[in-house]
Amino acid sequence: MSALDDLVSQIARLPGLGRKSAVRIAHYLLKSDRRVAGNLSELLATLHDRIHPCSECGRYTEADPCAVCSDSARDRTVICVVEQPQDVEVLEQSGEFHGLYHVLGGVLSPIDGIGPGELRVAALYRRIEQLGIREVILATNPTVEGDTTALYLVKQLQTRGVDCSRLALGLPVGGDLEYADRLTVARSLRGRTHYDS
Amino acid sequence: MSALDDLVSQIARLPGLGRKSAVRIAHYLLKSDRRVAGNLSELLATLHDRIHPCSECGRYTEADPCAVCSDSARDRTVICVVEQPQDVEVLEQSGEFHGLYHVLGGVLSPIDGIGPGELRVAALYRRIEQLGIREVILATNPTVEGDTTALYLVKQLQTRGVDCSRLALGLPVGGDLEYADRLTVARSLRGRTHYDS
Repeated sequence: MSALDDLVSQIARLPGLGRKSAVRIAHYLLKSDRRVAGNLSELLATLHDRIHPCSECGRYTEADPCAVCSDSARDRTVICVVEQPQDVEVLEQSGEFHGLYHVLGGVLSPIDGIGPGELRVAALYRRIEQLGIREVILATNPTVEGDTTALYLVKQLQTRGVDCSRLALGLPVGGDLEYADRLTVARSLRGRTHYDS
Repeated sequence: MSALDDLVSQIARLPGLGRKSAVRIAHYLLKSDRRVAGNLSELLATLHDRIHPCSECGRYTEADPCAVCSDSARDRTVICVVEQPQDVEVLEQSGEFHGLYHVLGGVLSPIDGIGPGELRVAALYRRIEQLGIREVILATNPTVEGDTTALYLVKQLQTRGVDCSRLALGLPVGGDLEYADRLTVARSLRGRTHYDS
């Protein structure tokens, strides 16, 4: 296999990319100044040495604990539970949440042999106790697996006397009712907000 | 800027990728075995040292001349002119062409200051003469710029007594007439093929 084919097939293995996009990217890199590929190469070479999961929340960070976990201005009584590290960035960008995060590292999936022991569930209980958390926001994805995982945690947490909540389901802002799926419309009706009278 | 933000913004600059895809790819690399990022890093580090444009046709290759240019089984009387190196791979995959290629490296674009001198046009004339080419297939893209560039070359080549042709325009195989654009339908009608009677 040529170096170019090798590069193309390695790029094509990245999530969301197919062979056509990989060919395009490889040729872009060849056409660009060699520093473009060089910079990327250096970043990739040192990636795993510089970035680790935060020992507290589990998101990727260079400093440990991460910027959120070590920020004394954050509300340390609320914790938001997410599936993946990248979900933290999405919630941070909303600017709406000022508490702490906890990355589970996946969802419960008995078929794949993933139980609570395979996720960062014990660490969640430990942090809730140590920090004296009063509310846990379940922000797993609104899928069957995400819902099941949230429900499992809610049951466990309620026995510990912690208030639990779940992200609202409904129409996406800027979305189009015409193109919304049946289940989303149903949830947006059920969760409708009333105007103050 | 953190190493992760840096990686995300460099990935997001690649063609066809936005910030969301870049975040996804960066987290995929972090979650994967470090060898995935490591292999990619090595390939990128040596990319420009191992792969160069072929001195004959201009496509990217490790050996010079490339596998096509040095293949004595190819028909050395027909040359197919394309805009970009990656166009060669697309034509090769069709399995329909057995001649040589010539990469122009772009299209004529007076607004951007790209004239024949900025493209590999002189090299094309030299190769046509040296090889004794009898047919030139213009395989530039069916766009205004691609058509203009093809037309310019046809005019120059016809004075040299070379037979010129252009890729057929029409419906894509497996496509849907319902979704074809007006201009493509018009070209598919104009270029219709008759059944033998």
